[in-house]
Amino acid sequence: MELALEPIGSLRTCFPEKLGIPRQPGLVPLARGVLRFSCAQPPAVWRDALRGLDGFSHVWITFVFDRAVTQGWKPCVRPPRLDGREKMGVFATRSPHRPNFLGLSLVKLDRVDLETPEVHVSGVDLLDGTLVVDLRPYHPENDVPVGEVSKGWLTRAAHPGLPVGWDESAREALAELLPKAQTDGMPEYSLEEAERLVEDVVGLDPRPAHLRGTPGEWYLRLLSFDVRVRVEGGRAQVYELRP
Amino acid sequence: MELALEPIGSLRTCFPEKLGIPRQPGLVPLARGVLRFSCAQPPAVWRDALRGLDGFSHVWITFVFDRAVTQGWKPCVRPPRLDGREKMGVFATRSPHRPNFLGLSLVKLDRVDLETPEVHVSGVDLLDGTLVVDLRPYHPENDVPVGEVSKGWLTRAAHPGLPVGWDESAREALAELLPKAQTDGMPEYSLEEAERLVEDVVGLDPRPAHLRGTPGEWYLRLLSFDVRVRVEGGRAQVYELRP
Repeated sequence: MELALEPIGSLRTCFPEKLGIPRQPGLVPLARGVLRFSCAQPPAVWRDALRGLDGFSHVWITFVFDRAVTQGWKPCVRPPRLDGREKMGVFATRSPHRPNFLGLSLVKLDRVDLETPEVHVSGVDLLDGTLVVDLRPYHPENDVPVGEVSKGWLTRAAHPGLPVGWDESAREALAELLPKAQTDGMPEYSLEEAERLVEDVVGLDPRPAHLRGTPGEWYLRLLSFDVRVRVEGGRAQVYELRP
Repeated sequence: MELALEPIGSLRTCFPEKLGIPRQPGLVPLARGVLRFSCAQPPAVWRDALRGLDGFSHVWITFVFDRAVTQGWKPCVRPPRLDGREKMGVFATRSPHRPNFLGLSLVKLDRVDLETPEVHVSGVDLLDGTLVVDLRPYHPENDVPVGEVSKGWLTRAAHPGLPVGWDESAREALAELLPKAQTDGMPEYSLEEAERLVEDVVGLDPRPAHLRGTPGEWYLRLLSFDVRVRVEGGRAQVYELRP
């Protein structure tokens, strides 16, 4: 059997670069995404395919780790949750470097816009432009494990977060830069939501495992701007925002 | 991007035919499956890829609805849970007739056999021989919805089950036929487990929606034998088993 994957569309998200993307879905509730459908079918076909989806609160997105494709898959990987110190089999992880490069994320369904059509979601952990190959509703009966649950090596994974503060000038820059993100077709945010998004993403300290929690300056790209951060004394300070 | 799916292996299950397969995973806890890996990689590679999986209690299987491929995908389908009376968009369902024909099932991980290697699971809703394209652990933190959950049109889906009885001759035939299933490479069952499997599968009344619950005779294939059933007075009676 030869089966070629054909994207149903792509997801616009608030994460234009890899650094800053939460390592799993749901960690940053305000991380929004908008699924826009492919031109391979007329809008009316997608509209039909979405009928009845709006009554569900959560959906599974099946997507392609397209950046990993060129690097190939690996039988063993070093999960960031174990600070890269240990090797695990790729099937024991969610690593992108897996056979067929398929990803799976449970996200909140905010709104189905049948006009365009578009599907608005949040809690995403996906790069802007990610190719989506399937969409299905979360079933509260069948997507829940039967019997006792154990989570293997994940029990040893730590997730220390950082408290986040702002320089006042950075906060003001956010107000100036936010409208630009909207004209770029990014998901929409009020100023308060955008502040919260920056805090949640920075607070996860998305740097590589060996740097996490250590003092230093770093920056990440979010929506349409750079966020510059200083970590000192166990706190992260957002000290600058620039286009 | 052109990405061809390459199966990592195929799943041997107790369901050699479509009729009888539970409509979702987890409904029949004793519905077992054994994932055997493809020859495209040497066993040592799959063995590496499985390292660390055995500590998890549940896994997601991503598979291909290979029988649906030839029929193509449809924007709208009639979910059996609504007795086929209503049309829903395919993205609002788990129907096989979806773009890319990918299926997703959460199953219990019974055992990882690194020797062969094989992965033994249960609670499957998959046809014997289903092509598997990915395997990943269930994460109790990230695979659970954040916030309130609503399940759309599923609230209107009814699942009346049937009590199941046995003719004594049928029960005896099961004891005779069971060893054959094992030599056919099917998942293993004790006699008690096989009895329970028959009862659970028959009790779901897997006939088409318009027949469900109505009196009549029907049969289904399970493991290596036919199960013949009579429905009468709101009860299902297993009256015969034959090779």
